[in-house]
Amino acid sequence: MKAHTEYMTFHTRKRYEMVHITDEVEAIVRRSGIEDGLCFVSPMHITAAVYVNDHESGLIEDIGEWLETLAPRGPEYNHHQTGEDNGDAHLKSLLLHHETTLPVTRGKLDLGPWQRVFYAEFDGQRPKRLIVKVLGIAAA
Amino acid sequence: MKAHTEYMTFHTRKRYEMVHITDEVEAIVRRSGIEDGLCFVSPMHITAAVYVNDHESGLIEDIGEWLETLAPRGPEYNHHQTGEDNGDAHLKSLLLHHETTLPVTRGKLDLGPWQRVFYAEFDGQRPKRLIVKVLGIAAA
Amino acid sequence: MKAHTEYMTFHTRKRYEMVHITDEVEAIVRRSGIEDGLCFVSPMHITAAVYVNDHESGLIEDIGEWLETLAPRGPEYNHHQTGEDNGDAHLKSLLLHHETTLPVTRGKLDLGPWQRVFYAEFDGQRPKRLIVKVLGIAAA
Repeated sequence: MKAHTEYMTFHTRKRYEMVHITDEVEAIVRRSGIEDGLCFVSPMHITAAVYVNDHESGLIEDIGEWLETLAPRGPEYNHHQTGEDNGDAHLKSLLLHHETTLPVTRGKLDLGPWQRVFYAEFDGQRPKRLIVKVLGIAAA
Repeated sequence: MKAHTEYMTFHTRKRYEMVHITDEVEAIVRRSGIEDGLCFVSPMHITAAVYVNDHESGLIEDIGEWLETLAPRGPEYNHHQTGEDNGDAHLKSLLLHHETTLPVTRGKLDLGPWQRVFYAEFDGQRPKRLIVKVLGIAAA
Repeated sequence: MKAHTEYMTFHTRKRYEMVHITDEVEAIVRRSGIEDGLCFVSPMHITAAVYVNDHESGLIEDIGEWLETLAPRGPEYNHHQTGEDNGDAHLKSLLLHHETTLPVTRGKLDLGPWQRVFYAEFDGQRPKRLIVKVLGIAAA
């Protein structure tokens, strides 16, 4: 049994940005040498999320607009009394869930054909970390 | 240490349907021979989800109506410019989260008395796959 | 490889309450003797959740108000025909997701500086259980 951990850093140019990371996660699984197990992916911040869905630009816009409807940016959050202005980013992170687990079979992510992994940034323009940890059975 | 993987296929008669799958997942755990570990359950599609909650018909209706309120079906999604008509299904899948992990103790799902597992279909009437992967310590 | 399981019981004084549990989960990880792996945390009930976000009182209020907006308490749920009055609690539990997984590295929770773990109670004033299961590689 083996565990393999890597960290990635994102520094998005925009405040809100969806970054496609399936290839990077797949490369980490390959480097892990793990054949069968689970791959955990999570931002180490509370104003970002990771999600699995379609890599289609219209849908990515839809997701952004939908998150804005359900957890709008605005001045009204109690959290802003601390001097912050990112209350909405915390709620958006909760809505998409801050972590996901992915299955690994025969040394690869065992995803359906349209399942792609995204890092969802809601308060970017600064360096933010993400952890990937693969746990499972290594190749003999 | 052991990993055990099975795939299930759903072909619902209706576009939207909640399918109770606790017994099937429990049977997979039993076949895995794993005594202590984690059981990962996830659709391999981006218009379905898996969730844990009560097996009570009124509540299942409530969940469906609530999802329709927060992520309504409609013509207005950018995603539909690709020819698709299931933008709402992607958002409903994100809202319920596309995967869940369940604990396995003494060879069984270690759930509370009312925790039941459901496959939530939001764009059915065609075959769709789900993966169950159990990772943990096998019986001696 | 090792698995370590503990159960916690909560009995909140209020119906709705957010309970900070990072220290308790960290202590369980320490007792597990696991150096590298994953820590699964979940209520064993369907009217509570566990989430990761900031330990800041204004934000905790914001999360409560936001959940009330998206999944309001009220008499209108079909579920209430069973005699229950907690339909909203089921939906709030689904919204925050009923479980989370946390990474364990070098014998500790591998969280970012502001990532704190919370038990979110939506139908309290009675004893409710939570399971923590740590799976991974034990210290040599």
